[in-house]
Amino acid sequence: MNMNEEKSKKSIMDYETVELDDENDALVILDQTKLPGSAELISLHTGEEIWEAIYLLKVRGAPAIGVAAAFGIYLLAKKIQTDAYDVFYQEFCRQKEYLNSARPTAVNLSWALNRMERVCTADRELPVARIKEKLKEEAAALKEEDIRVCRAIGEYGLTLVKPGDGILTHCNAGQLATCRYGTATAPIYLGQERGYHFRVFADETRPLLQGARLTAYELHASGVDVTLICDNMSAAVMRNGWVNAVFVGCDRVAANGDTANKIGTSVVAAVAQRYHVPVYICAPTSTIDMNTPTGADIVIEQRPAHEVTDMWYEKPMAPAGVKVYNPAFDVTDHDLIAGIVTEYGIARAPYTESLREIFRNAGRGAEGR
Amino acid sequence: MNMNEEKSKKSIMDYETVELDDENDALVILDQTKLPGSAELISLHTGEEIWEAIYLLKVRGAPAIGVAAAFGIYLLAKKIQTDAYDVFYQEFCRQKEYLNSARPTAVNLSWALNRMERVCTADRELPVARIKEKLKEEAAALKEEDIRVCRAIGEYGLTLVKPGDGILTHCNAGQLATCRYGTATAPIYLGQERGYHFRVFADETRPLLQGARLTAYELHASGVDVTLICDNMSAAVMRNGWVNAVFVGCDRVAANGDTANKIGTSVVAAVAQRYHVPVYICAPTSTIDMNTPTGADIVIEQRPAHEVTDMWYEKPMAPAGVKVYNPAFDVTDHDLIAGIVTEYGIARAPYTESLREIFRNAGRGAEGR
Repeated sequence: MNMNEEKSKKSIMDYETVELDDENDALVILDQTKLPGSAELISLHTGEEIWEAIYLLKVRGAPAIGVAAAFGIYLLAKKIQTDAYDVFYQEFCRQKEYLNSARPTAVNLSWALNRMERVCTADRELPVARIKEKLKEEAAALKEEDIRVCRAIGEYGLTLVKPGDGILTHCNAGQLATCRYGTATAPIYLGQERGYHFRVFADETRPLLQGARLTAYELHASGVDVTLICDNMSAAVMRNGWVNAVFVGCDRVAANGDTANKIGTSVVAAVAQRYHVPVYICAPTSTIDMNTPTGADIVIEQRPAHEVTDMWYEKPMAPAGVKVYNPAFDVTDHDLIAGIVTEYGIARAPYTESLREIFRNAGRGAEGR
Repeated sequence: MNMNEEKSKKSIMDYETVELDDENDALVILDQTKLPGSAELISLHTGEEIWEAIYLLKVRGAPAIGVAAAFGIYLLAKKIQTDAYDVFYQEFCRQKEYLNSARPTAVNLSWALNRMERVCTADRELPVARIKEKLKEEAAALKEEDIRVCRAIGEYGLTLVKPGDGILTHCNAGQLATCRYGTATAPIYLGQERGYHFRVFADETRPLLQGARLTAYELHASGVDVTLICDNMSAAVMRNGWVNAVFVGCDRVAANGDTANKIGTSVVAAVAQRYHVPVYICAPTSTIDMNTPTGADIVIEQRPAHEVTDMWYEKPMAPAGVKVYNPAFDVTDHDLIAGIVTEYGIARAPYTESLREIFRNAGRGAEGR
């Protein structure tokens, strides 16, 4: 307790989830595998260290992984000792493929690395030293974009609640999953800056406990009034009248507004409907997939039984050999969603039209994603 | 796994949760603190052993505790070496108060012990040896009543489902909480005897994991097709169309049908409403309290934070010092309940009338409880 209370004097908002220390040729991250026990910043220098940090989930959350990889590939490119573009580019690609192999299914990882590669190929006529500078600028831009998107979601989200409100969130769509603010937590942090005094309820989020380990951690460390509950307590707190709004993140939003997010989100949404509490999905437009017509078209990842039966535990907590169903995500039907909060505004039902409008506002066609 | 597979060849239905071994002056119980790792029958001989078994939850569940105490006080009375009623009765009361102190808030414990005491006082003119015999008969009658009540609930419950149905249950209202059949599991076990081939989903039931540790255990050991899920997966399995009915137990039913049961029951009920799945409360009439008008009149026990943050875990899974809300029960509103299954029949809405009718069927007034 003392260790953590010590830490909490310095708000987590004072740390960056992912940061470049260019002077020391280092990528500095908050080691999320040490949470909630301790908050340790670690400096990564080599390709192997960066790869391992991504692989071991020391940095996690799609946006945070993307930015870590972008800074990482910049640092590795910086070390390439040549003035010959072809030699440079060949080595760049080798390093890029290596980092990309850390979590091959994480879309943001390859997306960010591909964006970095395009800097090399677009400006191949420039001196290698200048390309290195442009890589640094691109990685910094990526991070700034992430922060800007999260902040914009926070501003729009904040219009949906009022000071003193109770907010329930599920899983971790927090600062730890992004570079700052998070998505679902962005209205909470902006409200915190402005003295809104929200009372936040964090679902622990079985089986991987991201709510307990990460969301409760980062909100508590930031001085937010947060109460940890088990996933099966949402009805109790809503029945008590303690919750005015639900904010959650998402993994994919379909064109009709159906939303795939961490398992249990649709449980929260059904309970919220019962207690007349609005559910808001915080969704960067990068997670809205207009090519997926409905939630039925989203494939749900199944995960291993041991996460439910004995992970984290001192001994197995279920009978050996019992069947386990462990979907990583569920789909919340669009009719349970009061609004989808993006960096370009809030989409309301009917979503098929309002999401298209969001992309038009963004100055690009819906097919652009 | 091998140990458990070994055990599962012998169905749990072959064990008794609580049994008298009169020949050896022993109370034999299935040690529930060893589950789900191993199924060990233990013999208790002394007052201290019986007290400790109740205190340490080696035997748990209101009906099972009551029957264990009844057999226990009989065994202790049997040992009293006197023919003088007053000496006998004084020592009986001393032992009774001792056992009653094991879990002072467990209503069934004092209820069963008081019933045993009435045997002594009602037949005080009889020889002490004969009183001892009557105590044995009363304890056996208590157990038989529990089994009869559970079986009757099972028969009525079975009329609500059909072979091959999917059934979801929450927490443990199983054989392990009673002498046989359980309440919520009674329709499942009777169906199993008759080849109904139910597919059962057991909520793990955070924070104490009774669903994973006990319900999944006893159903799996009995050869029932059971799948363990986290509490936040109920919407996913219902959305898949896998659940035809929810059966749960209860801690107290109010006169209007509002039902207090293990935390999360009202979450399941809200999700079930969303997916048009009927929710049935399995309630011995002993749990129906016509003197409690509505759920708002039921006081909800709050439990300590460490059950959520670090119990069972290898290390704390939440930030030190974070607030935790940990209610042991929640209230499910009567309008979410499709039926209340008692040993005297199934009550349907409006419950204020149908529950009174149940008590009339039972040949006693509603005020009799």
